[in-house]
Amino acid sequence: MEFLKDYTYKINKGLQDIELSKAPSNLYDPLRYFFRLGGKRIRPILTLLAAERFDKNGVTDPLNAALSVEIFHNFSLVHDDIMDKAPVRRGQQTVHEKWDQNIAILSGDVMLVKAYQYLNTYSPAIANQLITVFNKTAIEVCEGQQMDMDFEKISKVSQDEYIRMITLKTSVLLGCALKMGAIVGGADPKEQGDLYAFGLNMGIAFQIQDDLLDLYGDPKLVGKQVGGDLIANKNTLLMVVAKEVANEKQLSTLQTLSNEPNITKKIEGIIAIFKTLQVQEKCLELMGDFYEKAEYHLNKIGLNNSESALYILTRELKKRSY
Amino acid sequence: MEFLKDYTYKINKGLQDIELSKAPSNLYDPLRYFFRLGGKRIRPILTLLAAERFDKNGVTDPLNAALSVEIFHNFSLVHDDIMDKAPVRRGQQTVHEKWDQNIAILSGDVMLVKAYQYLNTYSPAIANQLITVFNKTAIEVCEGQQMDMDFEKISKVSQDEYIRMITLKTSVLLGCALKMGAIVGGADPKEQGDLYAFGLNMGIAFQIQDDLLDLYGDPKLVGKQVGGDLIANKNTLLMVVAKEVANEKQLSTLQTLSNEPNITKKIEGIIAIFKTLQVQEKCLELMGDFYEKAEYHLNKIGLNNSESALYILTRELKKRSY
Repeated sequence: MEFLKDYTYKINKGLQDIELSKAPSNLYDPLRYFFRLGGKRIRPILTLLAAERFDKNGVTDPLNAALSVEIFHNFSLVHDDIMDKAPVRRGQQTVHEKWDQNIAILSGDVMLVKAYQYLNTYSPAIANQLITVFNKTAIEVCEGQQMDMDFEKISKVSQDEYIRMITLKTSVLLGCALKMGAIVGGADPKEQGDLYAFGLNMGIAFQIQDDLLDLYGDPKLVGKQVGGDLIANKNTLLMVVAKEVANEKQLSTLQTLSNEPNITKKIEGIIAIFKTLQVQEKCLELMGDFYEKAEYHLNKIGLNNSESALYILTRELKKRSY
Repeated sequence: MEFLKDYTYKINKGLQDIELSKAPSNLYDPLRYFFRLGGKRIRPILTLLAAERFDKNGVTDPLNAALSVEIFHNFSLVHDDIMDKAPVRRGQQTVHEKWDQNIAILSGDVMLVKAYQYLNTYSPAIANQLITVFNKTAIEVCEGQQMDMDFEKISKVSQDEYIRMITLKTSVLLGCALKMGAIVGGADPKEQGDLYAFGLNMGIAFQIQDDLLDLYGDPKLVGKQVGGDLIANKNTLLMVVAKEVANEKQLSTLQTLSNEPNITKKIEGIIAIFKTLQVQEKCLELMGDFYEKAEYHLNKIGLNNSESALYILTRELKKRSY
């Protein structure tokens, strides 16, 4: 996003400046490669914004904390891509495709350790707090990824379980990114908690929005095939909600459609059932609830005004393609 | 080892007492399984012994630091087993065999984070020092594993490169285990350095001894096939040394033997060349040098007496099957 370009630049420069040995090249080349693939850098930017909110004179530089969040995110992508057998990431080959799987496992491992190295550059008292929230988050992210893999083998997942999975897999890291910024910036525990809750709820809302955009987004803006997740029979909140309210006959039709080879027929069939069941409305309402909770916590730390970068960011994310 | 049985018990109990969530079971069951597979627990015992040396009144409990070393070691085994496609570990199925590869990647990741959780239980000042040495070591272990994988694709590895690889892959963790114990026990930086150097050199000697035992050990005591590593064409110091001093003809014979399907013929052929080239003597001498360096550093902290557990441990390890 344009108004964040200085922050994006700072993060990208920070990633490029990470000192990595030349050898073994099969270990470190994947890190150099992956750090340059780009991305929105939302997570580390949240850390920088949170720190600035409390440390207006920039006494403690939040860059290393921000980098550790982004490095961790990259670690999880490298390992997730192996697990998902994904060939492409950000338009480029994934690490296990470009090199091989063993190299992807090991260079992911080294990324995770690098994230801790950046956390441990702070004073012991700060580092201790950062590592505490980071550890908790890292474990939750692993739990979320495992739940996601488990769900692929289950025909029916409840709405609560699904929300729990996306919370762990993606939202806790947004909360963590903000809380780490708050810690570096010297916020008190209450403020840290509100920023964390803001990030968590915004992350959930954001993920629900992704699921909605997959089917109902403007294809030109979303930049991928309409209903791509549904065609691939991936779990999305839409399907979870549909299955929770569907009757026997509708469930059976959804089951038949999951094996339908004709993509147009498949998507049209699913859309028809979703319409009858008011799936879009139900998901929009749920998303609205989480955005509302996020804004409530932002409000509590006095950041719900048009000059606050976190407020603008939330507003920008919220209006994506709607 | 019998004289260490109280320590082994302490570590095993500590591992069993680690609090792990029930769900997702596919994430945590592999940890419960792997922690119970057993093992000599040498690394965490080194941490306990080092701490006791300096903190005679047991002011700070070194157990969590010791556990973090063992958890890290287990993490590296789970991931290495995937990379090596190893079906068996300690007589039982490896994690990727018993569950699947994705589960092995992810439960390994969670182990690594758990190791940091145990390190971060100490006071910020101590935790900061522990995490510094731990990070450095973890990265070196990854580098060693990558070098090991790279070497499999190279026909000739120099003796120095090989020693560098085993140093990173296995020895630095012994040095780290001891240094972490020294930090918890309140040793000064010089003492920490000597303990680290003791562990590092002992680790290298120990690894060379493993390579020697593969071919020259008493099969009853070693508990595996004589020359197993050589049959599998694995890199060992013996082959590295042999290739460094072999003439063209001997090199060519070794090359031919690497493809020899008759195991007896293969091993006898290799033994004959090794004898001509005095490979065993050369490796024994090298091993002796590293044990000597290890003892020199132990001496500097006044631990080279028969009452010192570290001294007894070194002596016991040294006399394995010779």
